[in-house]
Amino acid sequence: MWSNAKDRGLRDRAANVIPGGMYGHQSTALLPEDFPQFFTKAEGTRITDADGNTYIDFMCGYGPNLLGYGRPEIMRAIAEQQAHIDTATGPSPLIVDLAEAMVSMVSHADWAMFCKNGSDATMMALMIARAYRGRSKVLVAKNAYHGSMPWSTPRPGGVLPEDRAHIVTFDYNDPESLTDAVRSVDGDLAGIFATPYRHDTFADQSMPDTEYARTARALADEYDALLIVDDVRAGFRITRDCSWETVGVRPDLSAWGKVLGNGQPISALVGSDKARDAAQKIFVTGSYWFSAVPMAAAIETLRLVRETDYLEHMQHVGGLFRNGLVAQAADFGFAVRHTGPETMPMVLFEDDPDFRVGYGFCRAAMKRGVYLSPYHNMFTNAAMTEDDIAETLEATGAAFEEIKRSRNALQPSAALMALMEA
Amino acid sequence: MWSNAKDRGLRDRAANVIPGGMYGHQSTALLPEDFPQFFTKAEGTRITDADGNTYIDFMCGYGPNLLGYGRPEIMRAIAEQQAHIDTATGPSPLIVDLAEAMVSMVSHADWAMFCKNGSDATMMALMIARAYRGRSKVLVAKNAYHGSMPWSTPRPGGVLPEDRAHIVTFDYNDPESLTDAVRSVDGDLAGIFATPYRHDTFADQSMPDTEYARTARALADEYDALLIVDDVRAGFRITRDCSWETVGVRPDLSAWGKVLGNGQPISALVGSDKARDAAQKIFVTGSYWFSAVPMAAAIETLRLVRETDYLEHMQHVGGLFRNGLVAQAADFGFAVRHTGPETMPMVLFEDDPDFRVGYGFCRAAMKRGVYLSPYHNMFTNAAMTEDDIAETLEATGAAFEEIKRSRNALQPSAALMALMEA
Repeated sequence: MWSNAKDRGLRDRAANVIPGGMYGHQSTALLPEDFPQFFTKAEGTRITDADGNTYIDFMCGYGPNLLGYGRPEIMRAIAEQQAHIDTATGPSPLIVDLAEAMVSMVSHADWAMFCKNGSDATMMALMIARAYRGRSKVLVAKNAYHGSMPWSTPRPGGVLPEDRAHIVTFDYNDPESLTDAVRSVDGDLAGIFATPYRHDTFADQSMPDTEYARTARALADEYDALLIVDDVRAGFRITRDCSWETVGVRPDLSAWGKVLGNGQPISALVGSDKARDAAQKIFVTGSYWFSAVPMAAAIETLRLVRETDYLEHMQHVGGLFRNGLVAQAADFGFAVRHTGPETMPMVLFEDDPDFRVGYGFCRAAMKRGVYLSPYHNMFTNAAMTEDDIAETLEATGAAFEEIKRSRNALQPSAALMALMEA
Repeated sequence: MWSNAKDRGLRDRAANVIPGGMYGHQSTALLPEDFPQFFTKAEGTRITDADGNTYIDFMCGYGPNLLGYGRPEIMRAIAEQQAHIDTATGPSPLIVDLAEAMVSMVSHADWAMFCKNGSDATMMALMIARAYRGRSKVLVAKNAYHGSMPWSTPRPGGVLPEDRAHIVTFDYNDPESLTDAVRSVDGDLAGIFATPYRHDTFADQSMPDTEYARTARALADEYDALLIVDDVRAGFRITRDCSWETVGVRPDLSAWGKVLGNGQPISALVGSDKARDAAQKIFVTGSYWFSAVPMAAAIETLRLVRETDYLEHMQHVGGLFRNGLVAQAADFGFAVRHTGPETMPMVLFEDDPDFRVGYGFCRAAMKRGVYLSPYHNMFTNAAMTEDDIAETLEATGAAFEEIKRSRNALQPSAALMALMEA
């Protein structure tokens, strides 16, 4: 029987010693009621919460779980490296091996730099774009997430107007809007940030339009500015290269993170020779950026990316999940929009402007052992089996049945409503 | 026989795939000629380079090595936690345990938030100070290092004037300069950043003057702004609490990192109740901020900080190193200034304006198996024994002898001269 008594107890303690009880993207503040905050086990495709409830996890750590939690080959690489050197006074030779691996796998890349947060990689891209020709303006798509630094964090607290004085927005997938934004900055264009595909929260996803991507490349070339693809979330979940290879457009820089070490803390910025001098002009660093263990995990992850069918498998199980869910929704009289790639599905309900149906559905699925998000794109991973999807669909079928029955009693999330009004 | 053939080979490969061959604070670009760039082993007090040369390491990973590389208790905590959960869809209960431990140990702290880089913690402090009363100006001591974000990185590449539009500097340990800076911002004071003691590169260190520290506290109170101690580098190396407890001054926020997980990637911002609401107003996060393994390492590190004499031991061996080095210098006709705490010594030579003597000395010591820095404060760690110090002094004695002999042939570092001219 599902219970959350221990989670509640931990939340009470957390409320004393952590502002708001929790912070950041893993706070349950915006999730449906009763979603567990604390977890004690992660293995393969499953997570277990503090009360011992186990879930098939479609959030995959918000991305890092690419090959399965605790994947044996990665755990062996970690253990072997830990016996030698991790954080020390200099990097290990693995930084060279890893940079060579990234350069060999990412078509546009001639060099690589490693860091910890996805935000580190996007910040480095911002700085390099500005160092490139000494210009200021950086273009980003409206509502696109590029990390939580002052220039990019989605909420206004602690941010000054100056932090964004030279950030200019445009509409994703709209070549005209992008062109207008470029013309508006009057020759002061440092770079254009491109999300590999639109994966905003609370919105349908959309794949990049080829004309839009080509326009971005052409404008960057015309103004001698840098084109940046922020592949932190989607990298290696679309293709075994920079995601924009799928539309035939090569950026000058791409930012990576999440899957790079299958959960070990490592992110990267890779770039072309065009951006190399500018990359040498910035000073960025971090206490643990040169630690060897995450690099060993990344090297092994990259090997598995090259040598296994992880991607095709994730697409296959993701397709089963999508088709099953859409059919179930219709059976129970709901219409869902399942958007984005099979490996990163977003599921939103039609006629659900305040998301109460989606929240109710995810809550009902959670109580039946399937962890879904009602507002953020989800993820498949290479450890998911057809049996996992069958078990998932059994739970989601029961969840549809429950919300069909209780539909009129569903209420919108108070926290979400407060955010939307703010 | 010391050799660096493999290091040279790795550097050649790195030059192709990493901008400048290396980046950040662990680049050897500013170190004396022949300093090894790549290391393959770290154990206890020692690091081994790619060519198999082993050094007694007085840089301690630029700080993280507090209790000895590969300290068995920490490695056990890591291995045990890895078997359960690390990076996943939510934090483990360890985040609550760790926050409680920090709050119990740091006198001014009522809450804690965890992150990855020291720069994350200082950025959060900056944002919280601005969120606190909706003000802009943040005061920092001239030349103090608070991380490598655009608002604080020590070099100008990729930084815009707007990134620092509201950063105001003052002279460390100068109450009048601090007071003038506060008055100059005309009521728009968000916060004052205080380095626990002055540990700038290429400069003598100085401990905080009590009047200066009290002035900082009084000014923050007078203007209802936040006082921040950046303890990323010095935390738990001065006392088992916030470093400014030693001068009887409690900040509203303190930033931590480096030693917190004895090398595992974790940093923290802790604060008082006064700053709790403001901390809830900012949105900051990172892909790996909630990973459980670094938190397990931090909990065990904090236990060892509380329960062992690590600090007194580090002070003891640091004192032996200082006294031995100063006596040797005099014996060979050199005068050195050994400044700062025994646990974080800075050693600079008198009459050495372009640092050529210091560089020559560190190079000669390195070739004899002792890794020192000629421009950055060094660190002792709890694994260092009296025998290690005796072995160190044997090498440094020979190094003094060598530079006495070759003094007239010493040349300044070309990279350093280029930096100083820039």
